[in-house]
Amino acid sequence: MTSTDTPTVDNGVNIEALRGARQALTDAPEAAQFQWQATCEWVRGTHSRSTITEFSGLGQQHSHRLPYTVDADHPEVFASEDNGATPPEIALAALASCLTAGVATVATNRGVQLRSVKATVHGGMDLQGILGIDGDVRNGFDSITVTFDIDADASRADLEAIIAQSQKRSAVYDVVTNPTTVNVSLA
Amino acid sequence: MTSTDTPTVDNGVNIEALRGARQALTDAPEAAQFQWQATCEWVRGTHSRSTITEFSGLGQQHSHRLPYTVDADHPEVFASEDNGATPPEIALAALASCLTAGVATVATNRGVQLRSVKATVHGGMDLQGILGIDGDVRNGFDSITVTFDIDADASRADLEAIIAQSQKRSAVYDVVTNPTTVNVSLA
Repeated sequence: MTSTDTPTVDNGVNIEALRGARQALTDAPEAAQFQWQATCEWVRGTHSRSTITEFSGLGQQHSHRLPYTVDADHPEVFASEDNGATPPEIALAALASCLTAGVATVATNRGVQLRSVKATVHGGMDLQGILGIDGDVRNGFDSITVTFDIDADASRADLEAIIAQSQKRSAVYDVVTNPTTVNVSLA
Repeated sequence: MTSTDTPTVDNGVNIEALRGARQALTDAPEAAQFQWQATCEWVRGTHSRSTITEFSGLGQQHSHRLPYTVDADHPEVFASEDNGATPPEIALAALASCLTAGVATVATNRGVQLRSVKATVHGGMDLQGILGIDGDVRNGFDSITVTFDIDADASRADLEAIIAQSQKRSAVYDVVTNPTTVNVSLA
């Protein structure tokens, strides 16, 4: 190695393939239309199990390597059995994991080697909303904070810029911060 | 049993305890302030693991009966290893499980015996957003549909009303359909 070699960065992100995919979808935008899917089956009480197996995109159906399941329930303080995380906690996990994958991808794109990344996410909620006690209180979070602890070969300013870019390109950050139309119906 | 007996409904939801909690929080609204939390640790590439253990509410800290984890990753078609569901799929699971718990709770409150409940949720996404190909395309879902299959002792109109009430009181439905402030920072 000489001083002019590019430092070797290995965060486990295949950035060349991502750049290729970006170019391919620029040339064929109809392939960029994806459909994500989950199937949630009621178990008992407030306990349910969601299964994630298939999605479509690039003009075809795809199966995950394995089916993934997420159990959800309410805690014992709500007179439930606590057989899983609550749905709001699962939403926070979705947000944190989306931003964390973004940090790994952007860091790799910028040649930054990561050693550890941890995102701690908190969401406040006034239960007077979902319990219907006060109609002026919303059902969801009043606000969310995400705090990153990152150990990496980069300055604080560079890490802050990586986090900002991750937010800018995060699907779930957009879902949480902006409204999405949801149509709910009986089959 | 005589014909004047109230039908026995057992969906596994302790509706008396919930009514009690609602009254207790009406009398002491400060106890209704909850904080939900998740901690997401980067594993490698786009793979992360979120852990959900603690939350606060009713004026104190609580631990779940068990720690719950959610692995997230990107699929092989994005040159990732597919070690978990994608963050958008996890967000869909959070939405479906919240509405499903609501259906069980509202049905019990209305004396409706459920036999099975299944929610299938789809979210469309144009990847030109998160890939930064087209700045006019949003990163998140273009729209979401949730379709319930319910087997229960109730008319179609009653089931539709139960689903509507579940939406009205769902935390995650509110999170998805309305904007929430998210503050992201480096520790």
